[in-house]
Amino acid sequence: MSVTPVQSGSVPGEIVTGTDQARHRPRVVILGAGFGGLNAATALRRAPVEVTVIDRRNYHLFQPLLYQVATAGLSPAQIAMPIRRILSRQSNATVLMDKVEAVDTAAGCVVTGSRRIPYDYLIVATGARHTYFGNDAWAEHAPGLKTITDATAIRARILAAFERAEVTDDPRLRQKLLTFVVVGGGPTGVELAGAIAELSRRTIVHDFRRIDSSSARVVLVEAGERILPAMPPCLSRKAQGQLERLGVEVVLGNAVAGCDDSGVRLVDGTEIGSACILWAAGVMASRAAKWIGAAADRAGRVIVDERLNPPGHDEIFVIGDTASVTDAAGRPVPGVAPAAKQMGRYAAYAILGDMAGRHPAPFRYRDFGNLATIGRKAAVADFGKTRLSGYPAWLVWNFAHLWFLVGFRNRLVVFLDWAVAYARNDRAARLITGHHEA
Amino acid sequence: MSVTPVQSGSVPGEIVTGTDQARHRPRVVILGAGFGGLNAATALRRAPVEVTVIDRRNYHLFQPLLYQVATAGLSPAQIAMPIRRILSRQSNATVLMDKVEAVDTAAGCVVTGSRRIPYDYLIVATGARHTYFGNDAWAEHAPGLKTITDATAIRARILAAFERAEVTDDPRLRQKLLTFVVVGGGPTGVELAGAIAELSRRTIVHDFRRIDSSSARVVLVEAGERILPAMPPCLSRKAQGQLERLGVEVVLGNAVAGCDDSGVRLVDGTEIGSACILWAAGVMASRAAKWIGAAADRAGRVIVDERLNPPGHDEIFVIGDTASVTDAAGRPVPGVAPAAKQMGRYAAYAILGDMAGRHPAPFRYRDFGNLATIGRKAAVADFGKTRLSGYPAWLVWNFAHLWFLVGFRNRLVVFLDWAVAYARNDRAARLITGHHEA
Repeated sequence: MSVTPVQSGSVPGEIVTGTDQARHRPRVVILGAGFGGLNAATALRRAPVEVTVIDRRNYHLFQPLLYQVATAGLSPAQIAMPIRRILSRQSNATVLMDKVEAVDTAAGCVVTGSRRIPYDYLIVATGARHTYFGNDAWAEHAPGLKTITDATAIRARILAAFERAEVTDDPRLRQKLLTFVVVGGGPTGVELAGAIAELSRRTIVHDFRRIDSSSARVVLVEAGERILPAMPPCLSRKAQGQLERLGVEVVLGNAVAGCDDSGVRLVDGTEIGSACILWAAGVMASRAAKWIGAAADRAGRVIVDERLNPPGHDEIFVIGDTASVTDAAGRPVPGVAPAAKQMGRYAAYAILGDMAGRHPAPFRYRDFGNLATIGRKAAVADFGKTRLSGYPAWLVWNFAHLWFLVGFRNRLVVFLDWAVAYARNDRAARLITGHHEA
Repeated sequence: MSVTPVQSGSVPGEIVTGTDQARHRPRVVILGAGFGGLNAATALRRAPVEVTVIDRRNYHLFQPLLYQVATAGLSPAQIAMPIRRILSRQSNATVLMDKVEAVDTAAGCVVTGSRRIPYDYLIVATGARHTYFGNDAWAEHAPGLKTITDATAIRARILAAFERAEVTDDPRLRQKLLTFVVVGGGPTGVELAGAIAELSRRTIVHDFRRIDSSSARVVLVEAGERILPAMPPCLSRKAQGQLERLGVEVVLGNAVAGCDDSGVRLVDGTEIGSACILWAAGVMASRAAKWIGAAADRAGRVIVDERLNPPGHDEIFVIGDTASVTDAAGRPVPGVAPAAKQMGRYAAYAILGDMAGRHPAPFRYRDFGNLATIGRKAAVADFGKTRLSGYPAWLVWNFAHLWFLVGFRNRLVVFLDWAVAYARNDRAARLITGHHEA
């Protein structure tokens, strides 16, 4: 969806002659530069507005490939791009790397640690983070995957487990070090489990002398009845079959009761000794609901109407994973990148409509299908009528992810990395860095 | 120099038929997988010995390009390669990621946190780290550059300074944030100062709205009379001229008297307010001298004879930055990568000679010349008679560094990155990660 600017072709520089006029240009403040926020900002590139994008990180992250950083397949810079680089040529956009403390909806101000930033329109796109359902003590034993720093820490944890197993002479410790548990059977959990299995059985299988890395145990624990619940049941079964062929043990209908140094305890009493537990289970929206004083659903998402406004605030739009929305067609909108992008562009369109005195048509979500990858030549794809699995689905997955990657250079380099990885069964970024580095 | 194995073409697997014989195969333990240690290991690939490489990191680092990671030009994985991947096909080599606590020279054992590893021959190649000449309190204010983690932390510090300058409304703080001080006029200091100047004046110059990144002040502080003291004076002058054309202020004959939150204080009383001080001054060898109970020079380097043995220990070889050695030609051997590689191969050759009852010829250092880069089309090269500066030197530098980079994939990707960076004045890895990431 492209936006028709109020004064098409008008460039801010041309319009603003005096500060008076400048003061009259609507100020659009966007919180968060994920898929939603960034698409809202770029959709406003020719609009006579002042756009301010606030994010506490300096980069836009291509979340769908973050698991590949966590499993040493890609480098951070290949899936992350500086926000101000992306908006470098958009002269009506200012990027501030800052942490939002609160929103003063009465005064129309965003409050950060250092200053107050007034807005005429506010777009809240602060996304979601993982949740331990109240058991925050599990975090240190079972890290989740949301940021680049999470990913490199998980990468270090996985690789260090093999290194420590090679060094130790204690068979029980070695067994524990060679057991990897992934909690949560959604796309991220499936991708992580598949990637760890491939790492141990293909990539590093010739690298060790004292252990057999391919003997590593990879367990995927899902509380529900099937993995990939967003997929049709037949594809969940296919995905599970492909995981099991890679050597992943899939445990269904069994939730985690506890995590500690020794490993994982499941509700049915099963204990799995592991030194590397990865958390891909619950997701909780950011604190946005508290900021704007709006009602939230159980996942902390702000409940908005079909114009993405919280009740009583037509100047505020909540989009992406932060929003709980049922679209014009009556469907709940899923927390996926395409939905966030569409909501971002809709918010821009609605703001321009409001400036022109038009009442925008309600938001309508276009579902382009659903993809999940398991490993080399293994994936599932759901396009409504068309359903793919195995090699064809894997090809579609590769193509789609390369296509949507930001920046030509990244596309080229990632393609190169994937080609080499495919040919050599290698992974480019097997580095143990950060606090694991003595 | 290539090694002639005692039984040429003999593969360990063929020789070892029983454990008795296995027990008689000399055990060569190598501490450190830098240029020296790794070259010693690979030089022994066909030798009837058991090689054990111990490093507390899992990767071999191409140190000469580390400053490019620190200045967002390259990603860590492009200049670092897993040690066990490099030695994956060398069946007589075992890699252990472990931290050496001590060496029991009497018993012939290396002691790590977890175990004792016996050796018949020991090669000490644990390199060097930066030193603050006793002022360790400066470390937090002026980080040094030795590891990948150092590099990504410095990268975050540099980029965060610009981000904070864009956010703040306090002109004095902004001035301080836009002042970068590099301490030490050796190759690393020169490369860092040049790269920061280029970053601020070319790469990010269009990215900010509230600050002019090209107004950033970059100061290079050198205690000696000229930068690049290892180069002939004329090249030092040329290098200084090229730095100044990039906008770097070069301060000579003035040492650092103090570092704190407010900035740097020089011995002549000058105070430079800065939020980003980088340390590229002193280098101190690892604790190896203490481990083996040998005499060390002022830089902590073990004083070895022309066969690289410390006094009284013909079975121990100290190489690379850890060794203080005057070669057969009577020249002190510099602490550079080519010297470390040559010493590594010499140690392997000497061990094989000793096994064959031969007395090896003393070590002789072959000097292939000296390179330093300043920035785009700016570098100096000293090949004895031939001396280059500017564009030609820069081309030689690029070629040489691509050539010696480990791994074909890396060569290709780094070449691609450099080509794109050159064409677009861009830098690929402008990410603020780690603890700077809120």
